Amino acid sequence: MNDRLRELLPTAPQGANDVLFRAAAEALLGRGKRVRPVMTMLACEHVGGRAIDALDLGCAVEMIHSASLVLDDLPCMDNATLRRGAPTIHISHGEDAAILVAIALLNQAYAAVLDARTIRPEVKLAALRNLTKAVGFDGLSQGQIRDLRDTPDRRDENGLRQLNHQKTSALFINALESGGAVGGATADQIRSLASFGEAIGFAFQLRDDLMDAVVSSEETGKDERQDAGKITFLDLWGEERLRAAIDESLERAREAIGPDSSLSRYAERLMRNAHLER
Amino acid sequence: MNDRLRELLPTAPQGANDVLFRAAAEALLGRGKRVRPVMTMLACEHVGGRAIDALDLGCAVEMIHSASLVLDDLPCMDNATLRRGAPTIHISHGEDAAILVAIALLNQAYAAVLDARTIRPEVKLAALRNLTKAVGFDGLSQGQIRDLRDTPDRRDENGLRQLNHQKTSALFINALESGGAVGGATADQIRSLASFGEAIGFAFQLRDDLMDAVVSSEETGKDERQDAGKITFLDLWGEERLRAAIDESLERAREAIGPDSSLSRYAERLMRNAHLER
Repeated sequence: MNDRLRELLPTAPQGANDVLFRAAAEALLGRGKRVRPVMTMLACEHVGGRAIDALDLGCAVEMIHSASLVLDDLPCMDNATLRRGAPTIHISHGEDAAILVAIALLNQAYAAVLDARTIRPEVKLAALRNLTKAVGFDGLSQGQIRDLRDTPDRRDENGLRQLNHQKTSALFINALESGGAVGGATADQIRSLASFGEAIGFAFQLRDDLMDAVVSSEETGKDERQDAGKITFLDLWGEERLRAAIDESLERAREAIGPDSSLSRYAERLMRNAHLER
Repeated sequence: MNDRLRELLPTAPQGANDVLFRAAAEALLGRGKRVRPVMTMLACEHVGGRAIDALDLGCAVEMIHSASLVLDDLPCMDNATLRRGAPTIHISHGEDAAILVAIALLNQAYAAVLDARTIRPEVKLAALRNLTKAVGFDGLSQGQIRDLRDTPDRRDENGLRQLNHQKTSALFINALESGGAVGGATADQIRSLASFGEAIGFAFQLRDDLMDAVVSSEETGKDERQDAGKITFLDLWGEERLRAAIDESLERAREAIGPDSSLSRYAERLMRNAHLER
């Protein structure tokens, strides 16, 4: 996976200012679970396609995810200094480079889909349209501004569900649907993959809220208590109900896709975490 | 043009945080010459197509241009307070919203191309691939980081030509080539349009350098002396040679496309400016 991510990044031309190229490699190739590309490929396989055919699409989704993390970390946003166990991009390379590399990575994601030889033209167009939805005014961008700006009264259960959808599940669903489309999924299969994505995205975000509160920076690779001051489901529900909701969501995900699917097994492994065991 | 730009922007859902939607309207619909969409449409017409068929593509190019201006103006970049006669987006709405609206506008540009009913699928794919080149590691993003970071010794004639290409001409060429493709251009016509774009982009940037030095903020709608401290062609060449180079580039542009083309006539009008007359 990392090899292909590296290949899909351009290299700096001789003599050019190479800060964006270095920053891109750092943002994209650092430690990371590669959850989204793995799901993209498993979705393709789940419907009978070859996982490898969805590799570049998965890499595109990872580029978008990495770009969003670079922006989330900026001083005018979460003001984070540590990500995936390394200094954040604006700390290493400056704010200007961080912002511009996010733009360049997002573009490179679209370029990777456009160049993918394993994806048919009509599937490319549909996958790209889905990606724009996951990123723009109804996706990551809107989710992030809400996360930064929404007043506490908007962070009720409904508000937080919407926020989690925009910040996490939308891209998960997108990765799964488009991965499925590459594999030739039927409309029914696409719907199942979307339900799985919604459920697993929600569980993933809840788990992240919990991790932020109980696990040390050394283990998460991020600044501790990044959510401090922001209302999350942990505040609304408390730890017991949150843990129960994670289990329920995981169960819903399994039901959507079938417990024997490799996607279900992957989801279970993903949710398991030594630091959250009791 | 403004009507269509407005239609292509999403409206905020009821009750949602609407700052990105307001910022997008401000960034996109403010005063502006709409040079890129006009050229996109004229290119389509130039090769025998209907100008209106390239309207949405032209709007997409304008969205990308607007997004790039929002970012250029940020405190960590040019730190500008005034643009198109109005406060810059980070001044009106905050840095976080400015960065996120740039991302959202860039995405919306891709969405506009993907949704355009007047563009055939294979032309969409080619136009999108061109756009990613104009924006990413070899286009606007790289041009902007170089403009901010390159040391004075890199701002020699070669360096500045590359920089102008990445910051201005690449998107011009892209708009013209893709507009031509929508109109069914031959490979020869695409090459002529690209030559025209390279020449007119260079002239346009030179003119901008001159404007920055001699015209007041009231007339340009931007902060005065935004280039102060940066070496431009005005420093390298002086005013006389710069004016001669603008004329030469305009002549090259006319030759590329034919002096009777409406593109040539538009280019002439564009370069004329009362404040630069002597």
